Amino acid sequence: MLFSDEYYMKLALKEAQYAFEEDEVPVGALVICNNKIIGKGYNQTERLKDVTAHAEMLAITAAANYLGSKFLEGCTLYVTLEPCLMCAAALKWARIDRLVFGASDAKAGYGLMQGLVLHPKTEVTHGIMENECSVLVSSFFKQKRENGV
Amino acid sequence: MLFSDEYYMKLALKEAQYAFEEDEVPVGALVICNNKIIGKGYNQTERLKDVTAHAEMLAITAAANYLGSKFLEGCTLYVTLEPCLMCAAALKWARIDRLVFGASDAKAGYGLMQGLVLHPKTEVTHGIMENECSVLVSSFFKQKRENGV
Repeated sequence: MLFSDEYYMKLALKEAQYAFEEDEVPVGALVICNNKIIGKGYNQTERLKDVTAHAEMLAITAAANYLGSKFLEGCTLYVTLEPCLMCAAALKWARIDRLVFGASDAKAGYGLMQGLVLHPKTEVTHGIMENECSVLVSSFFKQKRENGV
Repeated sequence: MLFSDEYYMKLALKEAQYAFEEDEVPVGALVICNNKIIGKGYNQTERLKDVTAHAEMLAITAAANYLGSKFLEGCTLYVTLEPCLMCAAALKWARIDRLVFGASDAKAGYGLMQGLVLHPKTEVTHGIMENECSVLVSSFFKQKRENGV
């Protein structure tokens, strides 16, 4: 359905797929405002050799550039994997209205500190296309292991 | 003393001063490797309209570009103010060896979750030139209040 969470998560998955193809941990993100994509990104930590180049960070910066505002008022961030602490804290600084993520990340997700990290106003939805989002990441690491990397 | 923590913190304070002059919350950071500055930055969240543009994030990205590596092995980050969660988590991803900060930040610092955020190998020193670092920030906000902003 147009403009549903699934609709945007599919687009975020497309971003994640680009990361996969470039041998990056496959995570993709979008920032949506009034049903419009105003920022997107996929993980580029390896290509850019920069730990700050997570999908969410790139999408946040792009959206802020688009809006000309550091606060992402009225925006939703869609991301295929639960954000890490860095990205969750960036979302707090940006005072984003809504966060929607696909797969959970028990290892590096911000979940443990949920109440302490995000802005109190940020609404969270998760599990959207969880299986597809999760499979992409697990396939990536499976392939890595099989290649002995 | 050359190459002491105070020596580098003074240089970080100079960065923070640039931020102050540009009406940004005055925080400055440096990344040092083998006694050489390989990355530096000052807070530019207002100028760039981007919450991710904290001094530490800019310094981390610059250092990673210099090294051609996302891991900041053998590096120390000096920053005038205790890093926030976003920056502390970025330092964890970068596996930095050492973090030295000046003033503590009880409100937005990562302190509460110290054990959970930084990489286990990261050594932390704080309170270097604490007063100077702290005064810069408090003067900034005092000035803001006096100007009724």
